[in-house]
This record gives sequence, C-alpha cells and structure tokens, in this order.
Amino acid sequence: MATDLPPVSDTVTQVTINAYAELSGDFNPLHVDEEVAAASEFGGTIAHGPIALQALFRTLTDGLGVDALPAGSRVAVTYRAPVRPGDAITARAEAPGEDGTRAAACTNQADVTVLSATVTLPE
Amino acid sequence: MATDLPPVSDTVTQVTINAYAELSGDFNPLHVDEEVAAASEFGGTIAHGPIALQALFRTLTDGLGVDALPAGSRVAVTYRAPVRPGDAITARAEAPGEDGTRAAACTNQADVTVLSATVTLPE
Repeated sequence: MATDLPPVSDTVTQVTINAYAELSGDFNPLHVDEEVAAASEFGGTIAHGPIALQALFRTLTDGLGVDALPAGSRVAVTYRAPVRPGDAITARAEAPGEDGTRAAACTNQADVTVLSATVTLPE
Repeated sequence: MATDLPPVSDTVTQVTINAYAELSGDFNPLHVDEEVAAASEFGGTIAHGPIALQALFRTLTDGLGVDALPAGSRVAVTYRAPVRPGDAITARAEAPGEDGTRAAACTNQADVTVLSATVTLPE
C-alpha cells in the first residue's frame, strides 16, 4: 500500500533569502531590505516564492528515491502565507489519491500552511 | 485590453546551481558533481527544479508591478525538460484567458520548452 512520504524540514534565514536574491537577481526590497520591508504590509522581509518549494522538492525526491523529478512531473502550488526569516518549514506529501495525484503542503513552526500543492508524477 | 507580460531572461550557470545546493541543502550529485552527472542518463549536471522558476517569478512580479505574488496565487508547473548550466532561460506569461488564468512557459536558447505553467492570481 502506498504511504505518505517522510516529511522534510528546512529553516529559512535571511542569509538564505540574500543568497537566493544573488542567484535569481531578484533584489526586491521586500526580500532583502529589512528597513523597507518592516514598513510594508508584511512588517518584515519575506522569502522569494521558490524558496518555500525547497523542502517540498526534497520530500519528493528523497521520498521517491529519485535524483530529480522526471520530465512530465506537475507541481501545482498555491501560495497561502508568507515565509519569513527564522521560519522552520516542514513539507509533507501524502500517498497518491484515487486520481493518482499526491496532496502536499508546507507548514511553518506555528502550523500555518504557507503553501499547498498537488503533485502529479508521469505514468 | 490585457496584454502578455514582458519576457524575462536569465542564464543558469553551474555557479547558480552550486549556490542553490548550498541554500537548499540538496547536494544530489546530479546537480553538483559534474563527473557523476556526466555518467548519468542526463550526460551532465542539471539545475534543481525551483531554479527554472526564477525567470517566471520575475516575469510575473515585474510585469504585474508587485513586490511578490499575493497570497492565493496558484502556479501549476509541468517540468518538461532539464535545465543545464549555460542555458539561457526565457520566461513568458500571456494575458489572462477567458477563465482568468495565464498560460506561461520557460524556454531555453534552443527554443525547447523546459517548463510550462498555468498561473492563477487571486480575484
């Protein structure tokens, strides 16, 4: 019987966010300028969207025992809440449902869902 | 009338991939060990999945004039082909269709689609 995949946790820091800014070229102040971000509606810096996917990808590749998701893999993500420096993100992916898709989610240390996802692997 | 968003291009290098390995903790040899990766079915290192999203996210945030995608945004990605060091990735997002979703894709310098996506922003 198919089972849920082992969860993977990852703590996001401002160092992570700054490194991601360097590699992506996205230096939006909301991500990297603590003073500007503190004055925004978010009250502080938030992580770039793809950062929150790290733990989810590791749950999938580690749990499935693959080096990378195969071509044809579909990952449909809904962003639900910001990820902030210091957040400990835990990714979980369930066993496939009757339609063959896996429900997945990333939660923070306060058990707030920061993103939910549906993962469909190729046949 | 709604229009397509301006495309954003980004060249992925082994330096980018190594930096992403550091920040994500995913040091799979397929990403970071050129010798091992050369002997794999891929014939060389490939980028982590979230790296290919960088240009797409920048197309969306730059084109929409927002600092970050708002909560409730849905990005459904199908991974179609590996991204390799040296690839120049161009992300494009179309104007919303009748159902309100935007079709999007990232192509490489050979015009191969490396990922396709459907983007739905909250009402």
